[in-house]
Amino acid sequence: MGKGRMEAFSDGVLAIIITIMVLELHAPHETDIAALRPLLPVLLSYVLSFVFLGIYWNNHHHMLACTRRVTGVILWANLHLLFWLSLVPFATGWMGGNAFAAFPTLVYGVVLLMAAIAYWILQQLIVASQGPGSLLRRAIGGDWKGKVSPLLYLAAIAATFWSRWVAMAIYVLVALIWLVPDRRIERVLAEPG
Amino acid sequence: MGKGRMEAFSDGVLAIIITIMVLELHAPHETDIAALRPLLPVLLSYVLSFVFLGIYWNNHHHMLACTRRVTGVILWANLHLLFWLSLVPFATGWMGGNAFAAFPTLVYGVVLLMAAIAYWILQQLIVASQGPGSLLRRAIGGDWKGKVSPLLYLAAIAATFWSRWVAMAIYVLVALIWLVPDRRIERVLAEPG
Amino acid sequence: MGKGRMEAFSDGVLAIIITIMVLELHAPHETDIAALRPLLPVLLSYVLSFVFLGIYWNNHHHMLACTRRVTGVILWANLHLLFWLSLVPFATGWMGGNAFAAFPTLVYGVVLLMAAIAYWILQQLIVASQGPGSLLRRAIGGDWKGKVSPLLYLAAIAATFWSRWVAMAIYVLVALIWLVPDRRIERVLAEPG
Amino acid sequence: MGKGRMEAFSDGVLAIIITIMVLELHAPHETDIAALRPLLPVLLSYVLSFVFLGIYWNNHHHMLACTRRVTGVILWANLHLLFWLSLVPFATGWMGGNAFAAFPTLVYGVVLLMAAIAYWILQQLIVASQGPGSLLRRAIGGDWKGKVSPLLYLAAIAATFWSRWVAMAIYVLVALIWLVPDRRIERVLAEPG
Repeated sequence: MGKGRMEAFSDGVLAIIITIMVLELHAPHETDIAALRPLLPVLLSYVLSFVFLGIYWNNHHHMLACTRRVTGVILWANLHLLFWLSLVPFATGWMGGNAFAAFPTLVYGVVLLMAAIAYWILQQLIVASQGPGSLLRRAIGGDWKGKVSPLLYLAAIAATFWSRWVAMAIYVLVALIWLVPDRRIERVLAEPG
Repeated sequence: MGKGRMEAFSDGVLAIIITIMVLELHAPHETDIAALRPLLPVLLSYVLSFVFLGIYWNNHHHMLACTRRVTGVILWANLHLLFWLSLVPFATGWMGGNAFAAFPTLVYGVVLLMAAIAYWILQQLIVASQGPGSLLRRAIGGDWKGKVSPLLYLAAIAATFWSRWVAMAIYVLVALIWLVPDRRIERVLAEPG
Repeated sequence: MGKGRMEAFSDGVLAIIITIMVLELHAPHETDIAALRPLLPVLLSYVLSFVFLGIYWNNHHHMLACTRRVTGVILWANLHLLFWLSLVPFATGWMGGNAFAAFPTLVYGVVLLMAAIAYWILQQLIVASQGPGSLLRRAIGGDWKGKVSPLLYLAAIAATFWSRWVAMAIYVLVALIWLVPDRRIERVLAEPG
Repeated sequence: MGKGRMEAFSDGVLAIIITIMVLELHAPHETDIAALRPLLPVLLSYVLSFVFLGIYWNNHHHMLACTRRVTGVILWANLHLLFWLSLVPFATGWMGGNAFAAFPTLVYGVVLLMAAIAYWILQQLIVASQGPGSLLRRAIGGDWKGKVSPLLYLAAIAATFWSRWVAMAIYVLVALIWLVPDRRIERVLAEPG
């Protein structure tokens, strides 16, 4: 079974998720600069989630570039990932609309953690389906980013009981870790043969 | 007439339907864990509908993998299916937002029943268009899942007059029946020739 | 310039337009059958607009099947068509939410009329770009449906001053005219060569 | 890395952005012609933003027609462009919903300016990735439109302190500059070889 429609469907869902978040940015009734003040945390959490969803789209893109065929189980693991990502707009809106209150900031971390776990499951299933000599396994190598991210999310979730700003700093740190270009997959794909 | 745009349009509509359901999950005004309590039925009905739409997308994917050409009548049968699926967010929101009240739970079953019938019509039209020796007919075989699902939906609809929890249990049962991997189509497609 | 992205973008916009209309179907607060009564005109106008957008998608699909290359002017004529179609959810919601009141029913007709004109302009530009022996011109032939529809929309718009039900009947008539299968394009495409 | 999914994702996001703007056109409660009066500025700003997003989609289409391969940095520059474009519905709704009040009209200009800068960055990165003899560099030539647009946006932003109508006139002027057909890219693509 080809991967074309799984890519197309994932692109569609991710495009919608990333875009409906902006509906949380309600146009204020006033028309002066002060009216934008309360929107600032909403905008900042939108930027953060936009970056996270961009990272997922990017990584998903690279992962499927290393994949030839998909099975029914892989289709469902992909839907499982999309499910957790579909909760990002809710968590973003709750956190941003309440100026990064502690509990919504915790929930935001839980959603990110579950999405990271879902991504890891999907990756493992694709590697397993490719058997020994899996192209994707070679491409991800030690996958230290994939291993350290869930730990950082857990740390951020715990930190919300102490300081929500520490939690936010950890979220930003995870985003930065992934934003730093990672040439592994591009290198493996460029190998002869 | 190629099937490419019918696939692309269906993917787009299904991606949007599956994603706008999450807009029913309104971020609460409070920021403590108690604020999530009233959202629980909304979340649970979202999960159920997400799984149902995932099943439809998955089956649609497999069905079109057995289809080469589409006619005008098939395009309309596909739109008919998408119409009933487009009512799923409404039924989900009404049922979830009222903690699985009896009548909305009945309406949810009616929408699922109509979608199942629309899927069956689409499948029959594709089989008919392929003539004797239809690849899709071989792939679906006895299609016991397709035959038993409408009966179960009818049972669930009737059960709402007695106990909505029985109705919900039947809906979950139908989802589980379809989630169990079904290798028929993958097997037929893998046959030589 | 290839037509692939114009098809993909049109499919995306049409899929979103057809789907966001369903957001007008607000889940009622009550949970009995009487709560569905006020939703009936909303649902009926949704069905009508779903059919109209389905017809446009279907015809667009067939038109582009007769098209090889697109120019900048054709891209803009296509966006012009999508603009008028994007107003369909507004007109549908206003008409359905007010139980087919006269003026919203008139506005609905104006939007359909403008979309029909935009479709005609797009079709003429594609025919012109194909030069003499245009495949699309052969496929559409006398195009009596394309010619009679704007006249019927005008009649419906005028009828709203007298009886909104006559106007609605004319809208349904136009939809039925287009729903009747039309084998012209499929026949021309099937010709040898 | 192929450009197919970047195109598909961009098409999806642009299709959603262009379509959700229409959700700002709330159906009024009254049903007479006077009820449409307050919607006029909303509709006009929707038309303007529809044209701007159409221009971006068109130019993006042409730019990628001159691009063969994309890198991770280009994927992110594309997401950066989509981010600023995703703020267009917010700015459009705020400006249109307040009858072109001065400060929202300024914010609208800022969003357009940032999108123009993001587009320019994306274009430069693609040109740089193609090395000397870049097809895209030949296609855009002196790129006077790309250079003059940010200056005009800055002028419009400044003009909002004096007259919002001058600012609006400048926005319309920029749209007209881009709407005038530009055969550069089509010419270069049509060159032999």
